[in-house]
Amino acid sequence: MFTVIGERINTSREKVQQAVAERDVSYIQEDVKKQQAAGAHYIDVNSAVGSGLEMDNIKWLISIIQEAVTVPLCIDSPDPGILEMAYGMVKNPPLINSISLETSRFEVMSSFLKGKKCGITALCIDDTGMPKSADDIVDRAKRLVESLEGIGMRRESIYIDPLVQPVSTESKNALVVLTAVRKITQEITGVHIVCGLSNISFGLPKRRVINRTFLSLMMEAGLDAAIMDPLDHRLMAILKTTELLLGNDEYCVGYLKSVRAGEIFD
Amino acid sequence: MFTVIGERINTSREKVQQAVAERDVSYIQEDVKKQQAAGAHYIDVNSAVGSGLEMDNIKWLISIIQEAVTVPLCIDSPDPGILEMAYGMVKNPPLINSISLETSRFEVMSSFLKGKKCGITALCIDDTGMPKSADDIVDRAKRLVESLEGIGMRRESIYIDPLVQPVSTESKNALVVLTAVRKITQEITGVHIVCGLSNISFGLPKRRVINRTFLSLMMEAGLDAAIMDPLDHRLMAILKTTELLLGNDEYCVGYLKSVRAGEIFD
Repeated sequence: MFTVIGERINTSREKVQQAVAERDVSYIQEDVKKQQAAGAHYIDVNSAVGSGLEMDNIKWLISIIQEAVTVPLCIDSPDPGILEMAYGMVKNPPLINSISLETSRFEVMSSFLKGKKCGITALCIDDTGMPKSADDIVDRAKRLVESLEGIGMRRESIYIDPLVQPVSTESKNALVVLTAVRKITQEITGVHIVCGLSNISFGLPKRRVINRTFLSLMMEAGLDAAIMDPLDHRLMAILKTTELLLGNDEYCVGYLKSVRAGEIFD
Repeated sequence: MFTVIGERINTSREKVQQAVAERDVSYIQEDVKKQQAAGAHYIDVNSAVGSGLEMDNIKWLISIIQEAVTVPLCIDSPDPGILEMAYGMVKNPPLINSISLETSRFEVMSSFLKGKKCGITALCIDDTGMPKSADDIVDRAKRLVESLEGIGMRRESIYIDPLVQPVSTESKNALVVLTAVRKITQEITGVHIVCGLSNISFGLPKRRVINRTFLSLMMEAGLDAAIMDPLDHRLMAILKTTELLLGNDEYCVGYLKSVRAGEIFD
């Protein structure tokens, strides 16, 4: 099953920042209810951008979001103090976003992770920066899995993020990450692969058509989770159509249900 | 470059059958002009269904279509007499649709093909019927290429059709053909791979979203031609977006041009 991590509760979005500043409970609760209804399996919560009151803001967000929905949260913060606090508040095992191979980040995050019951997104970035090739991504993914298993994480709790780079800066960028995802799927059995979809279309117009076409190709390569907008109806329709084409929808039950619910667009 | 074979001039479509019966020149010419403007590289012409006057009808069609457009034709007929006549009429080397491994069909078609300057679509069907697996498709593709090269066809004139079977009858049908296309691309260098896209969605509602999602996945696997409707604007938009993602559109020139022309839909 494909895991949808709803990306909307992020203070880098102006409306969310305003709702957080004004403690607008109904705005946030309506949004997350819609995300859950549309098929989100996790609600990502990120209040790092903006007010400087990340701790207070995320505490408020987690509290009111958990009143509104039953799905678990993805706690998205660079600050281990905030992660620790948030972990203490959540009702269900969360996803934690994120660890990487950068020495300082790996040390801080691995001491946070010890003994915790959670999933972890693991970015293929190290002290030399972004990956340079498909093989580079695969090599980093292997080092991440080895290191995380070394501190007691189970493989099925690890969500490798190969780091999508925009196709506008280098025309082979989508191919590179598709190749990497295909290899990770073959060579690191049992690990999840996640990405932020919309990075692929950075700098280009009509981004949503690029994002959803890319989702389909990435799913075929082995992507099984994405940080994405579950209220982008055409994106969700492509997800369901791709599940049908990848043989994950026996007797077309899921597809036909979605058609009846008006969720598939011709 | 991806080859679009415009499928609209087919008497199995009611409006086309009527236009042919009434010798409605402007209906046919407007349609093929639109297909060429939308990006068709070939205009498929098929008058096999309907009136029983296939010879007269295709003669008329070829004549008026060549007055209206400059792109070559794909002559689509089971009758070698008709192919011979059509071949004598065309201004540019045509595609011929089709040959297969069925003994009687291969014999008739191979004697037609000898010495001709044309492309040929080659169906992975043999005397035992439709292929049963991805390996079966690849095996048939190899036999087709070997046989066609044996009668003097050049590999770059051969368009292998792996035969798309509906995902509604067996949930793995798309995966099977994707796997086969990927293998053919790797194992039979230089051959083209073509398919009739819409077979995949037979028996299901909202077919067009399935067809275009499938096009994208098939292109990534190695499909480089399709018999399709170039006036399905969302299908053409996905084709261009997929070219962008597959690294075939340096500096995003083609994508940006399409956006400016209003051909990409968000």
